Amino acid sequence: MTSAGVLHGVGLGPGDPELVTVKAARILGEAQLVAYFVKAGRESNARKIARPYLRRDCEEIALAYPMTTERPFYTSEYVQALRRFYAESAERLAALLHEGHDVALLCEGDPMFYGSFMHIFVRLEPRFRIEICAGVSGMSGCFAAARAPMTWGDDTLTVVPATLDEAGLEHRLAEADAAVVMKLGGNFPKLRRVLTRLGLVERAIYVERGTMAGEKILPLREKLDDAAPYFAMVLAPGQGRRP
Amino acid sequence: MTSAGVLHGVGLGPGDPELVTVKAARILGEAQLVAYFVKAGRESNARKIARPYLRRDCEEIALAYPMTTERPFYTSEYVQALRRFYAESAERLAALLHEGHDVALLCEGDPMFYGSFMHIFVRLEPRFRIEICAGVSGMSGCFAAARAPMTWGDDTLTVVPATLDEAGLEHRLAEADAAVVMKLGGNFPKLRRVLTRLGLVERAIYVERGTMAGEKILPLREKLDDAAPYFAMVLAPGQGRRP
Repeated sequence: MTSAGVLHGVGLGPGDPELVTVKAARILGEAQLVAYFVKAGRESNARKIARPYLRRDCEEIALAYPMTTERPFYTSEYVQALRRFYAESAERLAALLHEGHDVALLCEGDPMFYGSFMHIFVRLEPRFRIEICAGVSGMSGCFAAARAPMTWGDDTLTVVPATLDEAGLEHRLAEADAAVVMKLGGNFPKLRRVLTRLGLVERAIYVERGTMAGEKILPLREKLDDAAPYFAMVLAPGQGRRP
Repeated sequence: MTSAGVLHGVGLGPGDPELVTVKAARILGEAQLVAYFVKAGRESNARKIARPYLRRDCEEIALAYPMTTERPFYTSEYVQALRRFYAESAERLAALLHEGHDVALLCEGDPMFYGSFMHIFVRLEPRFRIEICAGVSGMSGCFAAARAPMTWGDDTLTVVPATLDEAGLEHRLAEADAAVVMKLGGNFPKLRRVLTRLGLVERAIYVERGTMAGEKILPLREKLDDAAPYFAMVLAPGQGRRP
Protein backbone atom coordinates (compact mmCIF):
# COMPACT_ATOMS: atom_id res chain seq x y z
CA MET A 1 0.00 0.00 0.00
CA THR A 2 1.27 3.44 -0.93
CA SER A 3 1.14 6.20 1.64
CA ALA A 4 -0.53 9.42 0.52
CA GLY A 5 1.47 12.31 -0.93
CA VAL A 6 1.96 15.75 0.57
CA LEU A 7 0.38 18.91 -0.80
CA HIS A 8 2.67 21.95 -0.63
CA GLY A 9 1.04 25.39 -0.78
CA VAL A 10 3.96 27.40 -2.07
CA GLY A 11 3.89 31.19 -1.73
CA LEU A 12 5.80 32.74 -4.63
CA GLY A 13 5.84 36.40 -3.66
CA PRO A 14 4.67 39.51 -5.48
CA GLY A 15 5.99 38.79 -8.97
CA ASP A 16 9.75 39.24 -9.20
CA PRO A 17 11.13 35.66 -9.36
CA GLU A 18 14.02 36.76 -7.13
CA LEU A 19 11.50 37.45 -4.35
CA VAL A 20 10.74 33.73 -4.11
CA THR A 21 12.00 32.35 -0.79
CA VAL A 22 14.90 29.91 -0.56
CA LYS A 23 12.41 27.39 0.83
CA ALA A 24 9.97 27.80 -2.06
CA ALA A 25 12.86 27.51 -4.53
CA ARG A 26 13.88 24.23 -2.90
CA ILE A 27 10.33 22.82 -2.95
CA LEU A 28 9.88 23.81 -6.60
CA GLY A 29 13.21 22.26 -7.52
CA GLU A 30 12.12 18.97 -5.98
CA ALA A 31 8.55 18.96 -7.33
CA GLN A 32 7.62 16.36 -9.90
CA LEU A 33 4.00 17.57 -10.01
CA VAL A 34 3.19 21.26 -10.09
CA ALA A 35 -0.36 22.67 -10.05
CA TYR A 36 -1.51 26.24 -10.52
CA PHE A 37 -4.63 28.31 -11.00
CA VAL A 38 -5.00 30.11 -14.29
CA LYS A 39 -7.57 32.22 -16.05
CA ALA A 40 -8.73 30.41 -19.18
CA GLY A 41 -6.67 31.51 -22.16
CA ARG A 42 -4.05 33.37 -20.09
CA GLU A 43 -0.59 32.44 -18.90
CA SER A 44 -0.54 31.64 -15.20
CA ASN A 45 1.25 34.40 -13.37
CA ALA A 46 2.23 31.99 -10.59
CA ARG A 47 3.81 29.67 -13.13
CA LYS A 48 5.71 32.58 -14.68
CA ILE A 49 7.21 33.46 -11.28
CA ALA A 50 8.05 29.82 -10.52
CA ARG A 51 9.48 28.90 -13.91
CA PRO A 52 13.19 29.53 -13.19
CA TYR A 53 13.00 27.08 -10.28
CA LEU A 54 10.98 24.25 -11.85
CA ARG A 55 12.47 20.97 -12.99
CA ARG A 56 12.44 20.63 -16.75
CA ASP A 57 10.71 17.28 -16.44
CA CYS A 58 7.99 18.29 -14.00
CA GLU A 59 4.38 17.63 -14.90
CA GLU A 60 2.04 20.59 -14.82
CA ILE A 61 -1.60 20.63 -13.77
CA ALA A 62 -3.46 23.77 -14.85
CA LEU A 63 -6.57 24.53 -12.81
CA ALA A 64 -8.49 26.90 -15.10
CA TYR A 65 -11.06 29.19 -13.48
CA PRO A 66 -14.47 28.84 -15.08
CA MET A 67 -14.79 32.63 -15.55
CA THR A 68 -13.09 35.91 -14.81
CA THR A 69 -12.82 37.33 -11.31
CA GLU A 70 -14.29 40.56 -12.64
CA ARG A 71 -17.79 39.04 -12.83
CA PRO A 72 -19.97 40.29 -9.93
CA PHE A 73 -19.52 37.82 -7.14
CA TYR A 74 -22.98 37.97 -5.69
CA THR A 75 -24.87 36.14 -8.40
CA SER A 76 -25.64 32.65 -7.19
CA GLU A 77 -24.69 31.31 -10.62
CA TYR A 78 -21.15 32.62 -10.14
CA VAL A 79 -20.84 31.37 -6.59
CA GLN A 80 -21.99 27.94 -7.63
CA ALA A 81 -19.64 27.76 -10.59
CA LEU A 82 -16.74 28.72 -8.33
CA ARG A 83 -17.77 26.25 -5.67
CA ARG A 84 -17.91 23.49 -8.27
CA PHE A 85 -14.53 24.57 -9.62
CA TYR A 86 -12.80 24.48 -6.23
CA ALA A 87 -14.42 21.15 -5.37
CA GLU A 88 -13.36 19.61 -8.69
CA SER A 89 -9.84 21.06 -8.42
CA ALA A 90 -9.51 19.67 -4.90
CA GLU A 91 -10.59 16.24 -6.12
CA ARG A 92 -8.11 16.31 -9.01
CA LEU A 93 -5.33 16.98 -6.52
CA ALA A 94 -6.76 14.49 -4.01
CA ALA A 95 -6.59 11.71 -6.61
CA LEU A 96 -2.88 12.40 -7.14
CA LEU A 97 -2.14 12.67 -3.42
CA HIS A 98 -4.06 9.47 -2.84
CA GLU A 99 -1.81 7.68 -5.35
CA GLY A 100 1.18 8.77 -3.29
CA HIS A 101 2.32 11.74 -5.38
CA ASP A 102 3.47 14.96 -3.75
CA VAL A 103 2.05 18.08 -5.41
CA ALA A 104 3.32 21.68 -5.26
CA LEU A 105 0.40 24.10 -5.63
CA LEU A 106 1.74 27.47 -6.75
CA CYS A 107 0.39 30.58 -5.02
CA GLU A 108 1.12 34.16 -5.98
CA GLY A 109 1.97 36.31 -2.98
CA ASP A 110 1.28 34.77 0.40
CA PRO A 111 -0.87 31.62 0.35
CA MET A 112 -2.97 32.44 3.43
CA PHE A 113 -3.76 36.05 2.43
CA TYR A 114 -6.70 36.20 -0.04
CA GLY A 115 -5.24 33.12 -1.75
CA SER A 116 -7.12 30.66 -3.96
CA PHE A 117 -5.01 28.02 -2.22
CA MET A 118 -7.13 28.51 0.91
CA HIS A 119 -10.15 27.03 -0.87
CA ILE A 120 -8.17 23.88 -1.59
CA PHE A 121 -6.63 23.86 1.88
CA VAL A 122 -9.96 23.79 3.74
CA ARG A 123 -11.23 21.01 1.47
CA LEU A 124 -8.19 18.72 1.67
CA GLU A 125 -6.80 19.39 5.12
CA PRO A 126 -8.98 16.80 6.86
CA ARG A 127 -7.71 14.08 4.52
CA PHE A 128 -4.09 14.86 3.55
CA ARG A 129 -0.89 16.25 4.89
CA ILE A 130 -0.54 19.85 3.72
CA GLU A 131 2.58 21.98 4.17
CA ILE A 132 2.39 25.75 3.77
CA CYS A 133 5.33 27.86 2.67
CA ALA A 134 4.77 31.56 3.45
CA GLY A 135 5.59 34.07 0.72
CA VAL A 136 6.23 37.79 0.38
CA SER A 137 2.72 39.23 0.05
CA GLY A 138 1.80 41.31 -2.96
CA MET A 139 1.41 44.31 -0.69
CA SER A 140 4.86 43.91 0.87
CA GLY A 141 6.29 43.84 -2.65
CA CYS A 142 4.40 47.05 -3.42
CA PHE A 143 5.59 48.81 -0.23
CA ALA A 144 9.18 48.17 -1.29
CA ALA A 145 8.65 48.99 -4.96
CA ALA A 146 6.93 52.25 -4.02
CA ARG A 147 9.67 53.01 -1.45
CA ALA A 148 6.84 53.71 1.00
CA PRO A 149 7.38 53.13 4.72
CA MET A 150 3.86 52.00 5.60
CA THR A 151 3.35 51.72 9.36
CA TRP A 152 5.05 53.73 12.10
CA GLY A 153 4.80 53.17 15.84
CA ASP A 154 1.16 52.76 16.82
CA ASP A 155 -0.24 52.98 13.28
CA THR A 156 -3.03 50.58 12.45
CA LEU A 157 -2.93 49.07 8.98
CA THR A 158 -6.25 48.49 7.26
CA VAL A 159 -6.29 46.20 4.23
CA VAL A 160 -9.52 46.49 2.24
CA PRO A 161 -10.65 44.88 -0.99
CA ALA A 162 -12.06 47.50 -3.36
CA THR A 163 -14.84 45.01 -4.07
CA LEU A 164 -16.73 46.40 -1.03
CA ASP A 165 -19.60 48.74 -1.88
CA GLU A 166 -18.94 52.46 -1.76
CA ALA A 167 -20.38 53.01 1.73
CA GLY A 168 -18.47 50.01 3.09
CA LEU A 169 -15.20 51.20 1.57
CA GLU A 170 -15.69 54.67 3.00
CA HIS A 171 -16.50 53.30 6.43
CA ARG A 172 -13.39 51.09 6.47
CA LEU A 173 -11.04 53.77 5.18
CA ALA A 174 -12.39 56.71 7.20
CA GLU A 175 -10.36 55.90 10.31
CA ALA A 176 -7.40 54.10 8.77
CA ASP A 177 -3.92 55.26 9.77
CA ALA A 178 -2.28 53.33 6.95
CA ALA A 179 -4.31 51.60 4.26
CA VAL A 180 -3.84 49.15 1.42
CA VAL A 181 -6.68 48.78 -1.05
CA MET A 182 -6.50 45.64 -3.16
CA LYS A 183 -8.47 44.17 -6.10
CA LEU A 184 -8.92 47.43 -7.99
CA GLY A 185 -10.01 46.56 -11.55
CA GLY A 186 -13.44 47.98 -12.29
CA ASN A 187 -13.72 49.17 -8.69
CA PHE A 188 -11.17 51.91 -9.20
CA PRO A 189 -13.53 54.86 -10.01
CA LYS A 190 -15.57 54.05 -6.89
CA LEU A 191 -12.40 53.89 -4.79
CA ARG A 192 -11.18 57.21 -6.15
CA ARG A 193 -14.45 58.89 -5.16
CA VAL A 194 -14.11 57.51 -1.64
CA LEU A 195 -10.46 58.54 -1.26
CA THR A 196 -11.28 62.00 -2.59
CA ARG A 197 -14.11 62.48 -0.07
CA LEU A 198 -11.82 61.30 2.75
CA GLY A 199 -8.96 63.58 1.77
CA LEU A 200 -6.68 60.59 1.25
CA VAL A 201 -5.81 61.20 -2.39
CA GLU A 202 -2.85 63.44 -1.56
CA ARG A 203 -0.88 60.75 0.21
CA ALA A 204 -2.13 57.77 -1.81
CA ILE A 205 0.11 55.88 -4.23
CA TYR A 206 -1.10 53.84 -7.20
CA VAL A 207 0.87 50.63 -7.85
CA GLU A 208 0.37 48.42 -10.88
CA ARG A 209 2.43 45.26 -11.51
CA GLY A 210 4.59 45.98 -8.42
CA THR A 211 8.06 44.30 -8.67
CA MET A 212 7.30 43.05 -12.20
CA ALA A 213 8.09 44.06 -15.77
CA GLY A 214 5.78 46.92 -16.69
CA GLU A 215 5.65 48.16 -13.08
CA LYS A 216 3.82 51.51 -12.79
CA ILE A 217 4.00 53.52 -9.59
CA LEU A 218 2.69 57.04 -9.29
CA PRO A 219 1.01 59.40 -6.85
CA LEU A 220 -2.71 58.72 -7.14
CA ARG A 221 -3.38 62.36 -7.97
CA GLU A 222 -1.30 61.88 -11.15
CA LYS A 223 -3.21 58.78 -12.24
CA LEU A 224 -5.78 60.47 -14.44
CA ASP A 225 -7.51 57.59 -16.20
CA ASP A 226 -9.71 54.95 -14.61
CA ALA A 227 -8.10 51.85 -16.14
CA ALA A 228 -6.62 49.51 -13.52
CA PRO A 229 -5.92 45.78 -13.57
CA TYR A 230 -7.56 43.66 -10.89
CA PHE A 231 -4.28 43.17 -9.03
CA ALA A 232 -3.33 46.86 -8.93
CA MET A 233 -3.27 48.40 -5.45
CA VAL A 234 -3.53 51.76 -3.76
CA LEU A 235 -1.28 52.40 -0.76
CA ALA A 236 -1.89 55.14 1.79
CA PRO A 237 1.22 55.20 4.03
CA GLY A 238 0.78 55.84 7.74
CA GLN A 239 1.96 59.00 9.41
CA GLY A 240 2.45 57.74 12.95
CA ARG A 241 5.11 58.71 15.44
CA ARG A 242 8.68 58.86 14.26
CA PRO A 243 11.30 59.63 16.84
CA MET B 1 36.77 60.84 -6.27
CA THR B 2 34.86 57.83 -5.03
CA SER B 3 31.16 57.58 -5.78
CA ALA B 4 28.93 56.92 -2.77
CA GLY B 5 27.92 53.42 -1.79
CA VAL B 6 24.43 51.91 -1.85
CA LEU B 7 22.42 51.11 1.26
CA HIS B 8 20.40 47.89 0.97
CA GLY B 9 17.45 47.46 3.31
CA VAL B 10 17.22 43.70 3.32
CA GLY B 11 14.02 42.05 4.55
CA LEU B 12 14.86 38.68 6.11
CA GLY B 13 11.42 37.25 6.78
CA PRO B 14 9.80 35.97 9.96
CA GLY B 15 12.66 33.96 11.43
CA ASP B 16 13.20 30.68 9.58
CA PRO B 17 16.39 31.28 7.55
CA GLU B 18 14.84 29.31 4.67
CA LEU B 19 12.16 32.02 4.39
CA VAL B 20 14.80 34.52 3.25
CA THR B 21 14.20 35.45 -0.40
CA VAL B 22 16.60 34.45 -3.16
CA LYS B 23 17.28 38.15 -3.68
CA ALA B 24 18.12 38.78 -0.03
CA ALA B 25 20.38 35.69 -0.03
CA ARG B 26 22.22 37.10 -3.04
CA ILE B 27 22.63 40.57 -1.49
CA LEU B 28 23.88 39.05 1.79
CA GLY B 29 26.32 36.83 -0.08
CA GLU B 30 27.81 39.87 -1.79
CA ALA B 31 27.84 42.17 1.24
CA GLN B 32 31.19 43.19 2.65
CA LEU B 33 29.55 45.42 5.28
CA VAL B 34 26.54 44.24 7.21
CA ALA B 35 24.68 46.36 9.77
CA TYR B 36 21.90 45.36 12.14
CA PHE B 37 19.90 46.63 15.08
CA VAL B 38 20.31 44.81 18.34
CA LYS B 39 19.15 45.14 21.91
CA ALA B 40 22.17 45.73 24.14
CA GLY B 41 23.42 42.44 25.52
CA ARG B 42 21.30 40.27 23.20
CA GLU B 43 22.06 38.45 19.99
CA SER B 44 20.55 40.22 16.99
CA ASN B 45 17.68 38.15 15.68
CA ALA B 46 18.17 39.60 12.21
CA ARG B 47 21.80 38.52 12.23
CA LYS B 48 20.80 35.03 13.35
CA ILE B 49 18.45 34.71 10.37
CA ALA B 50 21.04 36.09 7.95
CA ARG B 51 24.03 34.13 9.21
CA PRO B 52 23.86 31.18 6.78
CA TYR B 53 24.07 33.62 3.87
CA LEU B 54 26.80 35.98 5.09
CA ARG B 55 30.36 35.96 3.82
CA ARG B 56 32.81 34.72 6.40
CA ASP B 57 34.92 37.82 5.92
CA CYS B 58 32.13 40.40 6.11
CA GLU B 59 32.43 43.24 8.60
CA GLU B 60 29.58 43.68 11.04
CA ILE B 61 28.19 46.91 12.41
CA ALA B 62 25.96 46.45 15.45
CA LEU B 63 23.54 49.31 16.08
CA ALA B 64 22.60 48.81 19.74
CA TYR B 65 19.33 50.33 20.94
CA PRO B 66 19.84 52.58 23.94
CA MET B 67 17.04 50.82 25.89
CA THR B 68 14.37 48.20 25.64
CA THR B 69 11.27 48.64 23.48
CA GLU B 70 9.20 47.71 26.53
CA ARG B 71 9.79 51.12 28.14
CA PRO B 72 6.69 53.35 27.81
CA PHE B 73 7.11 55.22 24.58
CA TYR B 74 5.45 58.43 25.58
CA THR B 75 8.07 59.78 27.94
CA SER B 76 9.96 62.52 26.16
CA GLU B 77 13.18 61.13 27.57
CA TYR B 78 12.62 57.89 25.69
CA VAL B 79 11.60 59.60 22.47
CA GLN B 80 14.68 61.78 22.58
CA ALA B 81 17.01 58.88 23.29
CA LEU B 82 15.56 56.98 20.34
CA ARG B 83 15.75 60.00 18.07
CA ARG B 84 19.40 60.46 18.98
CA PHE B 85 20.03 56.76 18.42
CA TYR B 86 18.49 56.73 14.93
CA ALA B 87 20.27 59.95 13.98
CA GLU B 88 23.64 58.60 15.17
CA SER B 89 23.05 55.23 13.51
CA ALA B 90 22.16 56.97 10.25
CA GLU B 91 25.36 59.02 10.45
CA ARG B 92 27.49 55.95 11.12
CA LEU B 93 26.09 54.37 7.97
CA ALA B 94 26.30 57.66 6.05
CA ALA B 95 30.03 57.88 6.76
CA LEU B 96 30.56 54.42 5.24
CA LEU B 97 28.34 55.12 2.24
CA HIS B 98 30.14 58.40 1.71
CA GLU B 99 33.46 56.55 1.55
CA GLY B 100 32.02 54.44 -1.26
CA HIS B 101 31.12 51.31 0.71
CA ASP B 102 27.87 49.47 0.08
CA VAL B 103 26.09 48.45 3.28
CA ALA B 104 23.44 45.77 3.82
CA LEU B 105 21.15 46.75 6.69
CA LEU B 106 19.42 43.63 8.00
CA CYS B 107 15.68 43.85 8.71
CA GLU B 108 13.57 41.18 10.36
CA GLY B 109 10.32 40.60 8.51
CA ASP B 110 9.42 43.17 5.89
CA PRO B 111 11.49 46.38 5.98
CA MET B 112 8.62 48.80 5.29
CA PHE B 113 6.21 47.31 7.84
CA TYR B 114 6.91 48.60 11.39
CA GLY B 115 10.63 48.30 10.60
CA SER B 116 13.47 50.13 12.35
CA PHE B 117 14.96 50.40 8.88
CA MET B 118 12.34 53.02 8.03
CA HIS B 119 13.91 55.44 10.51
CA ILE B 120 17.22 55.14 8.68
CA PHE B 121 15.53 55.25 5.28
CA VAL B 122 13.83 58.61 5.85
CA ARG B 123 17.08 60.09 7.17
CA LEU B 124 19.38 58.90 4.40
CA GLU B 125 17.14 58.78 1.35
CA PRO B 126 17.72 62.41 0.39
CA ARG B 127 21.49 61.83 0.29
CA PHE B 128 22.17 58.26 -0.81
CA ARG B 129 20.94 55.54 -3.12
CA ILE B 130 18.86 53.09 -1.11
CA GLU B 131 17.56 49.77 -2.44
CA ILE B 132 14.79 47.95 -0.61
CA CYS B 133 14.38 44.19 -0.72
CA ALA B 134 10.89 43.14 0.45
CA GLY B 135 10.67 40.24 2.88
CA VAL B 136 8.07 37.81 4.17
CA SER B 137 6.41 39.74 7.00
CA GLY B 138 6.33 38.32 10.50
CA MET B 139 2.56 38.05 10.24
CA SER B 140 2.68 36.10 6.96
CA GLY B 141 5.07 33.67 8.62
CA CYS B 142 2.62 33.32 11.49
CA PHE B 143 -0.40 32.74 9.18
CA ALA B 144 1.45 29.81 7.61
CA ALA B 145 2.84 28.44 10.87
CA ALA B 146 -0.63 28.58 12.42
CA ARG B 147 -2.17 27.02 9.27
CA ALA B 148 -4.71 29.83 9.42
CA PRO B 149 -6.30 31.10 6.21
CA MET B 150 -6.65 34.77 7.18
CA THR B 151 -8.71 36.73 4.67
CA TRP B 152 -11.54 35.46 2.47
CA GLY B 153 -13.30 37.36 -0.29
CA ASP B 154 -14.32 40.79 0.98
CA ASP B 155 -12.71 40.43 4.41
CA THR B 156 -10.91 43.48 5.71
CA LEU B 157 -7.68 42.82 7.58
CA THR B 158 -6.91 45.07 10.54
CA VAL B 159 -3.36 45.06 11.87
CA VAL B 160 -3.08 46.71 15.28
CA PRO B 161 -0.16 47.15 17.66
CA ALA B 162 -1.15 46.08 21.17
CA THR B 163 0.64 49.21 22.37
CA LEU B 164 -2.59 51.18 21.80
CA ASP B 165 -4.53 51.99 24.95
CA GLU B 166 -7.40 49.72 25.91
CA ALA B 167 -10.15 51.89 24.42
CA GLY B 168 -8.19 52.37 21.20
CA LEU B 169 -7.57 48.65 20.85
CA GLU B 170 -11.23 47.89 21.42
CA HIS B 171 -12.32 50.49 18.91
CA ARG B 172 -9.96 49.12 16.24
CA LEU B 173 -10.84 45.49 16.82
CA ALA B 174 -14.61 45.89 17.26
CA GLU B 175 -15.35 45.88 13.53
CA ALA B 176 -12.42 43.83 12.24
CA ASP B 177 -13.22 40.91 9.95
CA ALA B 178 -9.72 39.48 10.29
CA ALA B 179 -7.22 40.90 12.74
CA VAL B 180 -3.55 40.64 13.60
CA VAL B 181 -2.41 42.11 16.88
CA MET B 182 1.33 42.69 17.11
CA LYS B 183 3.79 43.83 19.79
CA LEU B 184 2.23 41.90 22.67
CA GLY B 185 4.76 41.82 25.51
CA GLY B 186 3.37 43.54 28.58
CA ASN B 187 0.28 44.57 26.61
CA PHE B 188 -1.05 41.03 26.55
CA PRO B 189 -3.39 41.15 29.61
CA LYS B 190 -4.98 44.34 28.24
CA LEU B 191 -5.43 42.71 24.84
CA ARG B 192 -7.00 39.63 26.37
CA ARG B 193 -9.57 41.77 28.20
CA VAL B 194 -10.46 43.51 24.93
CA LEU B 195 -10.75 40.28 22.94
CA THR B 196 -12.87 38.75 25.69
CA ARG B 197 -15.29 41.69 25.69
CA LEU B 198 -15.53 41.55 21.88
CA GLY B 199 -16.17 37.80 21.80
CA LEU B 200 -13.04 37.27 19.71
CA VAL B 201 -11.23 34.90 22.07
CA GLU B 202 -12.88 31.80 20.61
CA ARG B 203 -11.37 32.23 17.16
CA ALA B 204 -8.10 33.88 18.20
CA ILE B 205 -4.76 32.12 17.92
CA TYR B 206 -1.68 32.94 19.99
CA VAL B 207 1.63 32.68 18.09
CA GLU B 208 5.04 33.00 19.73
CA ARG B 209 8.30 32.66 17.77
CA GLY B 210 6.39 31.79 14.58
CA THR B 211 8.57 29.76 12.09
CA MET B 212 11.45 29.64 14.62
CA ALA B 213 12.88 27.16 17.10
CA GLY B 214 10.70 27.24 20.19
CA GLU B 215 7.59 28.12 18.15
CA LYS B 216 4.42 28.05 20.27
CA ILE B 217 1.01 28.15 18.63
CA LEU B 218 -2.20 27.60 20.52
CA PRO B 219 -5.82 28.70 20.63
CA LEU B 220 -5.88 31.85 22.73
CA ARG B 221 -8.41 30.29 25.11
CA GLU B 222 -5.76 27.69 26.00
CA LYS B 223 -3.07 30.28 26.71
CA LEU B 224 -3.65 30.64 30.44
CA ASP B 225 -0.71 32.73 31.62
CA ASP B 226 -0.01 36.36 30.75
CA ALA B 227 3.64 36.01 29.73
CA ALA B 228 4.27 36.96 26.11
CA PRO B 229 7.38 38.19 24.33
CA TYR B 230 7.16 41.53 22.54
CA PHE B 231 7.14 39.89 19.11
CA ALA B 232 4.36 37.41 19.88
CA MET B 233 1.14 37.94 17.92
CA VAL B 234 -2.53 37.16 18.14
CA LEU B 235 -4.32 36.22 14.91
CA ALA B 236 -8.09 36.32 14.47
CA PRO B 237 -8.78 34.70 11.07
CA GLY B 238 -11.54 36.15 8.89
CA GLN B 239 -14.77 34.33 8.22
CA GLY B 240 -15.73 35.88 4.89
CA ARG B 241 -17.38 34.24 1.92
CA ARG B 242 -16.08 30.88 0.76
CA PRO B 243 -17.63 29.46 -2.33
